Amino acid sequence: MIITFKKDAPKEELEQLRSALEEKGIKIADASSDTVGLYGLIGDTSVIDKEKILAYSWVTDVTRITVPYKKASRQFHPEDTVIQVGDIKIGGNHPIVMIAGPCSVESEEQIMEIARGVKKAGAKMLRGGAYKPRTSPYVFQGLQSKGIKLLVEARNETNLPIVSEIMSSDQLDEFVENVDILQVGARNMQNFDLLKKLGRINKPILLKRGLSNTIEEWLMSAEYIMSEGNPNVILCERGIRTFEPLTRNTLDLAVVSIVKKLTHLPVIIDPSHATGHWELVETAALASIVAGCDGLIVEVHNNPECALSDGQQSLKIKKFEELMKKAEKLAAFTGRNM
Amino acid sequence: MIITFKKDAPKEELEQLRSALEEKGIKIADASSDTVGLYGLIGDTSVIDKEKILAYSWVTDVTRITVPYKKASRQFHPEDTVIQVGDIKIGGNHPIVMIAGPCSVESEEQIMEIARGVKKAGAKMLRGGAYKPRTSPYVFQGLQSKGIKLLVEARNETNLPIVSEIMSSDQLDEFVENVDILQVGARNMQNFDLLKKLGRINKPILLKRGLSNTIEEWLMSAEYIMSEGNPNVILCERGIRTFEPLTRNTLDLAVVSIVKKLTHLPVIIDPSHATGHWELVETAALASIVAGCDGLIVEVHNNPECALSDGQQSLKIKKFEELMKKAEKLAAFTGRNM
Amino acid sequence: MIITFKKDAPKEELEQLRSALEEKGIKIADASSDTVGLYGLIGDTSVIDKEKILAYSWVTDVTRITVPYKKASRQFHPEDTVIQVGDIKIGGNHPIVMIAGPCSVESEEQIMEIARGVKKAGAKMLRGGAYKPRTSPYVFQGLQSKGIKLLVEARNETNLPIVSEIMSSDQLDEFVENVDILQVGARNMQNFDLLKKLGRINKPILLKRGLSNTIEEWLMSAEYIMSEGNPNVILCERGIRTFEPLTRNTLDLAVVSIVKKLTHLPVIIDPSHATGHWELVETAALASIVAGCDGLIVEVHNNPECALSDGQQSLKIKKFEELMKKAEKLAAFTGRNM
Amino acid sequence: MIITFKKDAPKEELEQLRSALEEKGIKIADASSDTVGLYGLIGDTSVIDKEKILAYSWVTDVTRITVPYKKASRQFHPEDTVIQVGDIKIGGNHPIVMIAGPCSVESEEQIMEIARGVKKAGAKMLRGGAYKPRTSPYVFQGLQSKGIKLLVEARNETNLPIVSEIMSSDQLDEFVENVDILQVGARNMQNFDLLKKLGRINKPILLKRGLSNTIEEWLMSAEYIMSEGNPNVILCERGIRTFEPLTRNTLDLAVVSIVKKLTHLPVIIDPSHATGHWELVETAALASIVAGCDGLIVEVHNNPECALSDGQQSLKIKKFEELMKKAEKLAAFTGRNM
Repeated sequence: MIITFKKDAPKEELEQLRSALEEKGIKIADASSDTVGLYGLIGDTSVIDKEKILAYSWVTDVTRITVPYKKASRQFHPEDTVIQVGDIKIGGNHPIVMIAGPCSVESEEQIMEIARGVKKAGAKMLRGGAYKPRTSPYVFQGLQSKGIKLLVEARNETNLPIVSEIMSSDQLDEFVENVDILQVGARNMQNFDLLKKLGRINKPILLKRGLSNTIEEWLMSAEYIMSEGNPNVILCERGIRTFEPLTRNTLDLAVVSIVKKLTHLPVIIDPSHATGHWELVETAALASIVAGCDGLIVEVHNNPECALSDGQQSLKIKKFEELMKKAEKLAAFTGRNM
Repeated sequence: MIITFKKDAPKEELEQLRSALEEKGIKIADASSDTVGLYGLIGDTSVIDKEKILAYSWVTDVTRITVPYKKASRQFHPEDTVIQVGDIKIGGNHPIVMIAGPCSVESEEQIMEIARGVKKAGAKMLRGGAYKPRTSPYVFQGLQSKGIKLLVEARNETNLPIVSEIMSSDQLDEFVENVDILQVGARNMQNFDLLKKLGRINKPILLKRGLSNTIEEWLMSAEYIMSEGNPNVILCERGIRTFEPLTRNTLDLAVVSIVKKLTHLPVIIDPSHATGHWELVETAALASIVAGCDGLIVEVHNNPECALSDGQQSLKIKKFEELMKKAEKLAAFTGRNM
Repeated sequence: MIITFKKDAPKEELEQLRSALEEKGIKIADASSDTVGLYGLIGDTSVIDKEKILAYSWVTDVTRITVPYKKASRQFHPEDTVIQVGDIKIGGNHPIVMIAGPCSVESEEQIMEIARGVKKAGAKMLRGGAYKPRTSPYVFQGLQSKGIKLLVEARNETNLPIVSEIMSSDQLDEFVENVDILQVGARNMQNFDLLKKLGRINKPILLKRGLSNTIEEWLMSAEYIMSEGNPNVILCERGIRTFEPLTRNTLDLAVVSIVKKLTHLPVIIDPSHATGHWELVETAALASIVAGCDGLIVEVHNNPECALSDGQQSLKIKKFEELMKKAEKLAAFTGRNM
Repeated sequence: MIITFKKDAPKEELEQLRSALEEKGIKIADASSDTVGLYGLIGDTSVIDKEKILAYSWVTDVTRITVPYKKASRQFHPEDTVIQVGDIKIGGNHPIVMIAGPCSVESEEQIMEIARGVKKAGAKMLRGGAYKPRTSPYVFQGLQSKGIKLLVEARNETNLPIVSEIMSSDQLDEFVENVDILQVGARNMQNFDLLKKLGRINKPILLKRGLSNTIEEWLMSAEYIMSEGNPNVILCERGIRTFEPLTRNTLDLAVVSIVKKLTHLPVIIDPSHATGHWELVETAALASIVAGCDGLIVEVHNNPECALSDGQQSLKIKKFEELMKKAEKLAAFTGRNM
């Protein structure tokens, strides 16, 4: 960490800052010039609150050299984290995992038909929303507990592990008992209270990146979960908000390389939300494989025109089968398999 | 609502859509040309899920003419909503309300000194965080219940109503019992589960705009609270995320006029978060008064250099007194008073 | 085009608008309801200035159904445009064209070594900046005319056509005489005066997307060139500006599919500027091939550490050879070739 | 400037970098720790190209402590720059200057009526576009030379100096001869060739901030003009591009304080483009006065409904008179006058 400051900083305040830092075990290398003050901080700076130092009016800037997360950082955990769900492994050099299913569970018939369809096409897990974060209170909010039950039935028949979004810590027992991977949605990425509670269970957490959150903020949210004791975090990029109106979001594909360099956690891509249009999903999914993702989570519906949510970005089962064939070939070509 | 579609839309699907709309009491005006299909939808379209219509592959676009919120809309509620807390009224043509206090409650001594200071300077309410949403799990997370108790003590002495942020529905009882205005932070603006629960109480809710949420999304979050029965929503703009690195956020001052036209709810401004630097707070606060805000919420600290959070954007009590004097004069000049 | 308006619009003004539209050959379908006015406009609306209609205070919105560009639109030109430079064809189903070379031409030795290196590795064209748009006036601004001469020498030896950025219409004669493809940089995408002048020559124009320009604005800039008579436009995505600080820009890969649907023009990708870090270039380039681009433009340097500009995002020749091998295999796999 | 680097940096390369820096007169303070390399650079770092240093693969970051502009910086020029046009002075503590007029000059009648109207209301200068940067080539492009002539006629009659946008260096002689302040539009903010040419004349340049340019980039564009010898630069904020669709742009009002701290140049605000809606202009203009701007540039039209461009954001003359009255009172209240 580097602190730059004005040379006319009050001596006592400067001394106060030095003492406070040294008490935390930080050594200070002074590289000040005649015109600018400059301290290099040596030691574990993750415990230092950058904002507190910036509060001194004579401090001009504080820059981190080392990352503010520890558990998530590859520096202290060089080998890849691999998340295991039943027989399926996500991360490391394990095959790319396809997770597929409807945006929302709508009925027994619907979830069963889709579950059978995506399994037959080669998906390894089933996604489906039971509690739905919808922008409007007046539209379908999900089947809730009934949705979870239907997902469990679908798993019983197809043997596909299930992924579903948890919206509140009230639902924690229900999810721990029934769901294999608990998803934290983009809008809850900085719901720190929920993150802490998810850190006290052992189930894998699929943590979506927020609509306009930086990679560092995203990794700090992973750190929230991990610092409470749950190391099983899967990162999921789902597109970020930009000024472009023709797509729902802009897929930030560079995150795969960046996140794999900075952390040891698996990274999966959601090409459905990242584009918002079913016609753009296949290309985004295939590009994600080339980018080195550990998995994909794709919206599939038996009847998108009648979907109660996100039909516009859902693939029909037939189209999903085509995607799987192309994806498997491409994965094999890149030496990774699916 | 306007639906545009391709002329080669399958007849049955088009018929299916028409029936579904008509069942909801919508009338359809057909203004299609030889090359483009165009339906104007007449009736209460707030119950229609735009996404569902877009799921038809032959639908090219769906555009709302009327807003998707009802309770928050000025159309059905022309007079200004006025929120009352003790003797203080927020909204309408009532005086502009100044809410001031530290980012976080840190100690009895700290909160008491600040509470006395801001009251003397003219603040009408006291803000203070007890539960703090911090990006890092390794920095100060707030005094939590102890913080709430200290706020209550400060209110007991100064008679200033208190505003504090609720981070989880677990804290609901504690907040309903002790806090006068419950704040929903920017990161929880689309925590729909929390919003619904806040809709079932009667206390005023101060709803901050999310970091990169549109005005319409913000008003839909207000609608979540109102649709559950709580009409007491105060909107709070706190700056949006842009590409500019020199400020923490960019204050979007146009929201005051826009939100007051679209809704009947009071709007207040948080110039501290909107700028992120104490030197920029005064100007932003005064500009907000000219823009017509109903209140201001400002961070004040007795010792910003030692603040456990956000010291960089906190005003010293002395500086806050100066701001209050200028603000009062300016408010009087604009005919609104403080 | 759809116009929505208030029902209390002044009759004469409404009549004035109707007449003005009808004079331009537009037919009006009236789909107004009791509460909202709604006109559907039928005919060639590309000549209509949306802003002018919005200027009526009683007009609430104007929405385009058809695109505002004609020459660039696939609607009126269904077959792909193929740009030919010597033997090389860009667009259609022709092989993906690799354009490579240094950010800036720096010396005869440098450009020759790089030209030979990229040719040997399989590049089909040579890029190199002679006039450089640099943020600071105090850093290297390019060799200018000498740079163009060195590029011509490199072409003479290697037979690689050359691509270079034109910064001003003053340079037009020099570029028309010497350069094979004239590049318009991101910062000049809406330099309409330059675009018009480039529309009056016949050489191919490589039009980069602006830092924060929408796809529609980009296509309108292509239309500026085409409307003056030059149909030879190649679109180049080079990343857009977002809030993420870890990458220089965010590559918007969805543009390939979108632009190919909306227009008939070739689309190439610049993975060097889109990421800003050489370590991220290969992945972005390969993902672009999967996304269906018609070409790539990549920065390569013989000695990036000593590059006078953009060394951070330049590949060494050795690394570029590896990229070419992977790219060729991947292109063959996708059935497109390079 | 601070350079951080990996401790395993190759010795010769590190030495090469040190020598190169020392040759430019820079002293190096070494504050490296056992794990991280850290150099503080002391001296005039404005001549150093940050990108070149980042090109070393072992350099992890380069951070500027001092600003990269010199002529524009207040550090070396503490007193305010005051731009004089006839009797009018812009900047320092001189009265706030109101510049008003139509987006485009359309006819003699139009410009004369508006010029007389805004003069009577209190405007000190007349704005009017003759060469218009329009997104579409198919809409009105301005009266061009005829427009300049009409502006000169309007000046002859009203004595108001004229401000107009130059789009190309071809127009330089015409503008130098006829126009009092040459405006560089947002889309040309980084048209460095034009900036350099404007640096070789003496007329004041009104430099608009680009749609998504940082404050530092904007000041570097000012530096381009100033480094060529023209010190007469006026900065103009006109709103930035964000994700919010309800306003054309988002006015970044914090720039006034920030730019006045960093530079000695006058800053004016364009509330018309910053909001895009005439109903929002007055509030934005008044807030800008409170924020401390040195001037305002406002679009006014005698008949906005018939304006050939930007009618939606133009004030009627009557409305402009009201704005002037409020603005004058508010300016007087703030002790600045108009």
